[in-house]
Amino acid sequence: MENVKSLTEHLWFEVPQRRGFLNITETVEELVRKSAIKEGLCLVNAMHITASVYINDAENGLLHDYEVWLEKLAPHEPTSQYRHNGTGEDNADAHLKRQIMGREVVVAITKGQLDLGPWEQIYYGEFDGKRRKRVLVKIIGE
Amino acid sequence: MENVKSLTEHLWFEVPQRRGFLNITETVEELVRKSAIKEGLCLVNAMHITASVYINDAENGLLHDYEVWLEKLAPHEPTSQYRHNGTGEDNADAHLKRQIMGREVVVAITKGQLDLGPWEQIYYGEFDGKRRKRVLVKIIGE
Amino acid sequence: MENVKSLTEHLWFEVPQRRGFLNITETVEELVRKSAIKEGLCLVNAMHITASVYINDAENGLLHDYEVWLEKLAPHEPTSQYRHNGTGEDNADAHLKRQIMGREVVVAITKGQLDLGPWEQIYYGEFDGKRRKRVLVKIIGE
Repeated sequence: MENVKSLTEHLWFEVPQRRGFLNITETVEELVRKSAIKEGLCLVNAMHITASVYINDAENGLLHDYEVWLEKLAPHEPTSQYRHNGTGEDNADAHLKRQIMGREVVVAITKGQLDLGPWEQIYYGEFDGKRRKRVLVKIIGE
Repeated sequence: MENVKSLTEHLWFEVPQRRGFLNITETVEELVRKSAIKEGLCLVNAMHITASVYINDAENGLLHDYEVWLEKLAPHEPTSQYRHNGTGEDNADAHLKRQIMGREVVVAITKGQLDLGPWEQIYYGEFDGKRRKRVLVKIIGE
Repeated sequence: MENVKSLTEHLWFEVPQRRGFLNITETVEELVRKSAIKEGLCLVNAMHITASVYINDAENGLLHDYEVWLEKLAPHEPTSQYRHNGTGEDNADAHLKRQIMGREVVVAITKGQLDLGPWEQIYYGEFDGKRRKRVLVKIIGE
């Protein structure tokens, strides 16, 4: 039982396509080590509202299935179906897809490590790419 | 590095229509200032199970798109399609819509402020309004 | 204002059907008491990527409605529609359903108790059962 410690880092990504998935688990694990926090919580969130941070499987077939499924639930085309695109954007579907996949994950830190299940991997999901975007990692504990 | 501090506040809302969206970012920011917490985490969650707290864009076209999209994924009518409504309620769709939009957000506090991206705004999403409901803000850190 | 305390527990479940919902609120409340933490945050997350922890109503009609709705949004059959199932699995739909329902909840602890709204109940949602799986409860505070 010690005093509160914290660490704040902003990660930058630029996905070259409109949509894509990046496995960021190792990067977050390195930040947990850097923080020297033994027991605590690790928040990882997209700082942009057309992107997600989520936890699921590192399996290429599943990433393809997510792409097809999200496009079915919230199609990009026709872009005129969304009032948001009347602002000059064409990314309304990305704001919807991100709600399905979520903004953030909170992961426990136990004995100095991310307390993840056997298949849990932390992903950045991009739904409106071709621009630089940030993810925030905030670690708090003792 | 100091001892743990916390702040707990319950916000009350009454949306006059069945559904609506309220931007609560400034209210949460004021509570962060009041807490005097410099580094920590801020949980904001709906305390009712037919409402959401989520983060996305403060743009009226998008709010309209959410309304249309959620009604497509989980339609209110016919209310008889949901077994839950057999209890005398007509809000089963609201329980479903809230799962899409989420219950809560966790936001980092850095240097005494909400560490939000440039377009991130905290919203209360109401899917079964016309009654008083609460949102919980819990801040913890140092 | 005291030093940081934490508690870590892993709960095990085996749902005998492919899908099912378990109310775990009382178990989590007991762990909060055991932690002796008065003010803090309680993270409850599925450690498996075909299961969810979410908060909603303890009402059997609604649980039936979730089952029907999730099967409509992300059907199990035909299993060949998902590339992930080419790996020999038949659970791609479960990875999708879990994104709708979420991985985790973060609940405030106030005066030594879960700070839940009147109808909020913590549920484990299983979408690929018949095997032993874990939920992590991590409590941090003072």
